[in-house]
Amino acid sequence: MNIFVFGSGNVAWSLVPALQKAGHNVVGVYGRTASNVRELCNHFSVMPVLELDKITPYADVYFIVTADNGIISAASTLKTNHIVLHTSGTTDINVLKRFFKKCGVIYPVQTFSKSVQVDFSKVPLLIEYSDEITAQKINMLATSLSSDVREMSSAQRRILHLSAVFACNFANHMVSVSKMLMAKEDVDFALLEPLIHETVRKALENDPILCQSGPAVRNDTRILNYHLEMLNQYPILKKIYSYVSESISEFSKSYPVGVSGIIPKNKENEGIF
Amino acid sequence: MNIFVFGSGNVAWSLVPALQKAGHNVVGVYGRTASNVRELCNHFSVMPVLELDKITPYADVYFIVTADNGIISAASTLKTNHIVLHTSGTTDINVLKRFFKKCGVIYPVQTFSKSVQVDFSKVPLLIEYSDEITAQKINMLATSLSSDVREMSSAQRRILHLSAVFACNFANHMVSVSKMLMAKEDVDFALLEPLIHETVRKALENDPILCQSGPAVRNDTRILNYHLEMLNQYPILKKIYSYVSESISEFSKSYPVGVSGIIPKNKENEGIF
Repeated sequence: MNIFVFGSGNVAWSLVPALQKAGHNVVGVYGRTASNVRELCNHFSVMPVLELDKITPYADVYFIVTADNGIISAASTLKTNHIVLHTSGTTDINVLKRFFKKCGVIYPVQTFSKSVQVDFSKVPLLIEYSDEITAQKINMLATSLSSDVREMSSAQRRILHLSAVFACNFANHMVSVSKMLMAKEDVDFALLEPLIHETVRKALENDPILCQSGPAVRNDTRILNYHLEMLNQYPILKKIYSYVSESISEFSKSYPVGVSGIIPKNKENEGIF
Repeated sequence: MNIFVFGSGNVAWSLVPALQKAGHNVVGVYGRTASNVRELCNHFSVMPVLELDKITPYADVYFIVTADNGIISAASTLKTNHIVLHTSGTTDINVLKRFFKKCGVIYPVQTFSKSVQVDFSKVPLLIEYSDEITAQKINMLATSLSSDVREMSSAQRRILHLSAVFACNFANHMVSVSKMLMAKEDVDFALLEPLIHETVRKALENDPILCQSGPAVRNDTRILNYHLEMLNQYPILKKIYSYVSESISEFSKSYPVGVSGIIPKNKENEGIF
């Protein structure tokens, strides 16, 4: 297929080579920042497009890979009767339907960075489409990129994105907080690494809710209060400590039905933390 | 050495076999719940002790491995001139000094569960002691259990424990929240697993603060508000979303000096999440 890419950020840096590897022809990349577009296009031998009216109307598929808040403005400037896709977890397919007859979504469930090009072949791709004919083409395109392609509605995709913010962005911040606290008191962060690995292994091999350990799930108020006091100089972290502990306690009482087949009694994993 | 263990919980289930493997003689285990003590003692062929006045006064070392809120009461019932240790991250060594001349701490940086016996030989052990003669014995005992023994003050150990609550307990809860949200909408949690693994790998190989991605660090207010709205039925999760996002934003502005040698500009890792 002949494919045009609208956007030159992190997603583009992994998508363009993945498309090329799958045998597609990337006919051009448009971006607002000339230096970014040129760097990307030089790297992958693609034609840079710096003016909106120079975008070819003849591509088979247009990928909008801008940040979420750039999708509408990108869509409103593209003039084409061919397929237009976005790659966002949160933006609804209806945003594209307002502008295009044939449109859809290919949402890759992975983080992207310019410096590390992601191997698309193992990334789950969640697809959605405007109509059955477009569906066939999007499905063909997606399966040429990855072996894990699934249909998913905008509503489910939004939940997945929100969940990813908790499980990835927020979990990462919890590690950041820990590193900052230890650095301030000159304690070696490496001491925690085996424990972090073990926590993730346990959580994913079993069930994170059943593996919850620490003072909150034990309702150890002496330690909870002590920790809150230690955080006096960090008011936001104190709020986080307090609400996350409350949430852990609530989860341990009202285990949501359907999250796991295991009955939440006889918790084996209440360790020293 | 002849060692007595006070407590029969998760730590005891890993400590007793580790002591035996290192060639020590576990002369008895005391616990309040008879069935727990008997199960542990049968499993490792150790003498169960169910009454306080039956605790031998002749052991070389007494390990208090109760929960934190049980340490003082354990210490007040033990009568001995020999070394008394606890294994807690948060309880100060001074709690033991009030009762014993020779005392100390061996704090294993790991989570313990009855069902999985931890290999102590790779667990970092943080030690503290009342005096230099006791120090030698504690050091000998600790190095017989693990190849990674370090001295650490109560103050630093407390920070490490608080940091572990963030990096392990709270990070685990973020994954729990994500699993619950997805289960409610029938979205396959397995979709997020590669992303979680990649997040942890990035955070530990580089620097979690520099690897932070997601709407908060991008200050994508449209998505932030949208997510908050999606959480309307979960008031505590909404608070958590709001404060963690605020904290991510604050970290990205005022990068704490000393956390990393890398300059926080040119962040490469702002992915699609």
